[in-house]
Amino acid sequence: MQTNQARFEVATDGRGTTNITRRVQDAVRGSGIRTGLCHVFVQHTSASLMLCENADPTVRRDLEAFLARLVPDGDPLFHHTAEGPDDMPSHVRAILTNMDLTLPVSDGRCALGTWQGVFLYEHRTDRQRREVVVTVQGDG
Amino acid sequence: MQTNQARFEVATDGRGTTNITRRVQDAVRGSGIRTGLCHVFVQHTSASLMLCENADPTVRRDLEAFLARLVPDGDPLFHHTAEGPDDMPSHVRAILTNMDLTLPVSDGRCALGTWQGVFLYEHRTDRQRREVVVTVQGDG
Amino acid sequence: MQTNQARFEVATDGRGTTNITRRVQDAVRGSGIRTGLCHVFVQHTSASLMLCENADPTVRRDLEAFLARLVPDGDPLFHHTAEGPDDMPSHVRAILTNMDLTLPVSDGRCALGTWQGVFLYEHRTDRQRREVVVTVQGDG
Repeated sequence: MQTNQARFEVATDGRGTTNITRRVQDAVRGSGIRTGLCHVFVQHTSASLMLCENADPTVRRDLEAFLARLVPDGDPLFHHTAEGPDDMPSHVRAILTNMDLTLPVSDGRCALGTWQGVFLYEHRTDRQRREVVVTVQGDG
Repeated sequence: MQTNQARFEVATDGRGTTNITRRVQDAVRGSGIRTGLCHVFVQHTSASLMLCENADPTVRRDLEAFLARLVPDGDPLFHHTAEGPDDMPSHVRAILTNMDLTLPVSDGRCALGTWQGVFLYEHRTDRQRREVVVTVQGDG
Repeated sequence: MQTNQARFEVATDGRGTTNITRRVQDAVRGSGIRTGLCHVFVQHTSASLMLCENADPTVRRDLEAFLARLVPDGDPLFHHTAEGPDDMPSHVRAILTNMDLTLPVSDGRCALGTWQGVFLYEHRTDRQRREVVVTVQGDG
C-alpha cells in the first residue's frame, strides 16, 4: 500500500459551484493507485466539497436557491458580520455541506456513480482562491 | 497494511431507511482487517448513508418528518422536477445527509457506539436499487 | 504504510462546542505518521464533529442560534421525547453536522487551513462524556 498527496487551487467566481471531478480523477491517476480511497479536502471554512448530480445544471441552481432560503444572507440572527452579510451564512453552509469528502478508488479511478460529480461550493459572494488537498491511499 | 473492496446492492421500498450495519460488518470481517478504517459509499445522488440511533424506530420516523418539512416535495422553489415532486428534494436531502461515511475498525469490526447503526436512506418515493461500495484499509 | 489508533474522552458542559484540535494533533504526532489521513469519530448519536472557524467565538454562538431555530427543542413534530425536549433535536443536529471527519496529514500534522479548528459539538443540554476514536493511516 502507498500514500500519495497532491494539491491544487480553485479560483472561484464568487458564490456557486465548480466541477472539480476531472482534477480529482487526475490526482488519482497521478498517484498510480488502483484500489483504495481518495480523500478531498478544502482548507477553508466558507467553501465546501460535495457530490451532486452532474448532468442538469438546474440541480445546482435549485440547491443554491434552497440554501439561500435556509440560511439567508443578512439574517439578523447572526452577529458575526465583519466581512459582510454573507460571512456567517457561508460558515453555516460549509458546515451543512462539509469540507471533507472521501471516495472509493477502483481500477485506478474514483468509483463515482454515473450521475455523481465532485463540486467545490463557494459560499462567499466575492471571488476567492481555495486550496484543495487530495490524498490517495491504496494498492498500486 | 492492506486494502479490501467489496460491493453490495440494496433494494429499497421507496423513501425511508434500511439498516445495513450487518452487511457493512460482514464486509469488514471478510476483509480480515483488524485495525483501520471502513469507508462506505453509495453511488447515487438521491440516496445517502448515515449513522443514526438504532434502537427506537421513532427516531427515524421523526427524522423523516423533519426532512419532509425542511425540504418539501413539490416546493415551487425547485425547477428540476422532470422525475416528479420528490426529484430535487431527494438531491438536497442526499447532500445534507451525505453519500460517504467513514468508520474506525477495531478488533476486526467497525467500532460503532452502542446506539449507532449504519443506515442507507432512500429519498425517492419509488423503489430503487442502490449500489454500495465498502473499502476497508488497515492491518490484518 | 502504517495504521495507528488512539482514543480519548471529552467531558462536555452540555450543549455547545469543545475545541479538540490539539488532542487530534497530539494523536497524529503520537502516531509518527508524516503523510496520510487522520479520521476522527465520535461513538454517539447526539454529539458530532465538525470543522469550524477557530478565531471568533461568535461564529459558534451564531451557529448554535441557527441550529436552535432550525431544529427547535420541544418541536411537536417529534415523538421520540423519552429523554426530554432536546432528545430528538440532538439526533437531527448530529446527523446534519456528522459524527465522522477525515483530515489530510502532511508533515506530521493535520493539514488544516489557518482558520479551521476541529470541534466536538455536544447537542444534549446535560453534561455528557463522549468517546472519540482517532485513526491515523499513512507513511512514517
